[in-house]
Amino acid sequence: MTTSQARAGSGEATGTRGRRPGIKDVAGAAGVSVTTVSHVLNGKGRVDAATRARVAEAAERLGYRPNSNARGLRSGRTDTIAMLLPAGADAHDHHVLAVDYYLSLTMKTVEAAFERDQALLQLPPLRRLDDLRRFGIDGGIVLDPVPGDGRVAMFHRLGLPVVTVGRDITRPDDPWWVAADSAASTRTVLEHFAAGGARRVAMLSVDIEWSWFADAERTYVEWAAERGCEPILVLARPDRRDSSAASAAAALLDLRPDAVYVPPQWLATGLLRLARDRGVRVPDDLLVAVGVDSHLARTSEPALTAVDLDPARTAREAVDLLMHRIEGGPPGDPRVIPVTLHPRGSSLRPK
Amino acid sequence: MTTSQARAGSGEATGTRGRRPGIKDVAGAAGVSVTTVSHVLNGKGRVDAATRARVAEAAERLGYRPNSNARGLRSGRTDTIAMLLPAGADAHDHHVLAVDYYLSLTMKTVEAAFERDQALLQLPPLRRLDDLRRFGIDGGIVLDPVPGDGRVAMFHRLGLPVVTVGRDITRPDDPWWVAADSAASTRTVLEHFAAGGARRVAMLSVDIEWSWFADAERTYVEWAAERGCEPILVLARPDRRDSSAASAAAALLDLRPDAVYVPPQWLATGLLRLARDRGVRVPDDLLVAVGVDSHLARTSEPALTAVDLDPARTAREAVDLLMHRIEGGPPGDPRVIPVTLHPRGSSLRPK
Repeated sequence: MTTSQARAGSGEATGTRGRRPGIKDVAGAAGVSVTTVSHVLNGKGRVDAATRARVAEAAERLGYRPNSNARGLRSGRTDTIAMLLPAGADAHDHHVLAVDYYLSLTMKTVEAAFERDQALLQLPPLRRLDDLRRFGIDGGIVLDPVPGDGRVAMFHRLGLPVVTVGRDITRPDDPWWVAADSAASTRTVLEHFAAGGARRVAMLSVDIEWSWFADAERTYVEWAAERGCEPILVLARPDRRDSSAASAAAALLDLRPDAVYVPPQWLATGLLRLARDRGVRVPDDLLVAVGVDSHLARTSEPALTAVDLDPARTAREAVDLLMHRIEGGPPGDPRVIPVTLHPRGSSLRPK
Repeated sequence: MTTSQARAGSGEATGTRGRRPGIKDVAGAAGVSVTTVSHVLNGKGRVDAATRARVAEAAERLGYRPNSNARGLRSGRTDTIAMLLPAGADAHDHHVLAVDYYLSLTMKTVEAAFERDQALLQLPPLRRLDDLRRFGIDGGIVLDPVPGDGRVAMFHRLGLPVVTVGRDITRPDDPWWVAADSAASTRTVLEHFAAGGARRVAMLSVDIEWSWFADAERTYVEWAAERGCEPILVLARPDRRDSSAASAAAALLDLRPDAVYVPPQWLATGLLRLARDRGVRVPDDLLVAVGVDSHLARTSEPALTAVDLDPARTAREAVDLLMHRIEGGPPGDPRVIPVTLHPRGSSLRPK
């Protein structure tokens, strides 16, 4: 062990660029052995406090950076995990990603990874297996998998641990996912509408097979059946053009609902505008709630009742689950994240 | 060279986890030497097409991943660059980052890095030098530096190449930045207002020392002076609470402008609402334009005239400039990104 560490250190100092001070330089400056420096920097072995301080001071003064590559070669680990935003054909479609949930989730995942001493690589849309093979990572977090998700399949083919945020609805046996509780939040929204006096409760959603949307749709249909109502459900086409959003909103309003839950936030803007154009007042004539909270929901006029998906907790749980899988832990229960409804002006009628 | 490559390969195959096929396995399966495999995978040396195909097929079949750590040790490079979003004290303030520009810039930077065979690490807010030292990176891109930016200083202390998106307004001699042309876009907006008949053109901005805001403010003051007008300039406090945004908007409307340029998008929402409450009609009584385009700007009512900062080009230029610096290239001119104004309903009066 000591020998290989010393060798890695000297390899560093004599690298082709030759600018970085190596572990030998630190050892020389602190007047200790390379082994002692290694022990201090890795928190191993018994080294007295004064020597620790001297080594730390020398490393700081020389600007020494432990070579994480050398570390990776020893442990077989890169201490780097990857994150993949929902993308692919829709990579350049801003509608879905416009909501600040994704940036918030990204930043929280970076922080959660850092707290576990992991660097977070953001990966581009993966077009083929080689795209993934190029990265030195221990595993990855895939956001919003579709059925038989190609990104997840690439991780499996390379034997790389992977977890998802949202689950593949066609793989009920896969426990390696974290997801906000779509079914519970749908029921909460629907009951909130019912308590507000709504009798014709509808759903406006999108034909994308993410578990968030699929669970909301299923729960809504079940809820309507329990109450002996016909479901009033309109799905926008998944290509998400402004035109499909507008025609879906028009089809929905034609059905004259008095409340509508809109799981994808980007469909709500067009609905509100069309309602205004038609003289349908929100919330007086129509209660509205959206499935993800955002700056836009908070500052909309009226402010939109929205589900808070807790991106901070989702990020922490996703990193924790991935680390568990990387470390070879056994499969456990999926992590379902509780959500909170923020009732706002769009669903609260003045008494 | 050959020896060290073979050694790195065998180190891989016998690593502590022992799961990854090594370069020797590929060589065995393809019936060639380790050196040949290395030449094929690194695109070096002279290897005939049939052998190349055989090696590539074997590597694919075995699921061989070149160990980027081993590569890093040889070249002194990690082929990994870092990106730092504007953060720090404001890390949890969603106002600034709510605009989809930052997510778009992030995704475009990931893609631009990938095209240059670089992985992109997203870094958390750096609290101290050790936070940066832990990452095995070749350099970094810092977004929206403030004067004497602490993140940039950390890169310098570690001798790591760094470029910024936006420039440090107190470091005029630093050429290592990429930025959208704030001065030109400000003039474009102001001339657009003047062409629309505005006589009392104002600016509502924020007291944050990013070059984007500072250049807009300076350009506005110069433009007003050229026209012999008193500038009508209101700056919101940088803590960006909703209350400071509201009071800044109120102070601005009290000054009765007939056009207002709002460089930070998040101040525009409150301004539009307050204008409506006061019976000030947009665009009839007041022309409005914002400094960054977004989903919110496009779907606002009326749609907001906005500056398109071209995040795709900004990302490409930032990665290109950083790679130039990493490769030891000489300083050149900073990269100024041309911008485009999208005139929309908020500044276009019906004839």
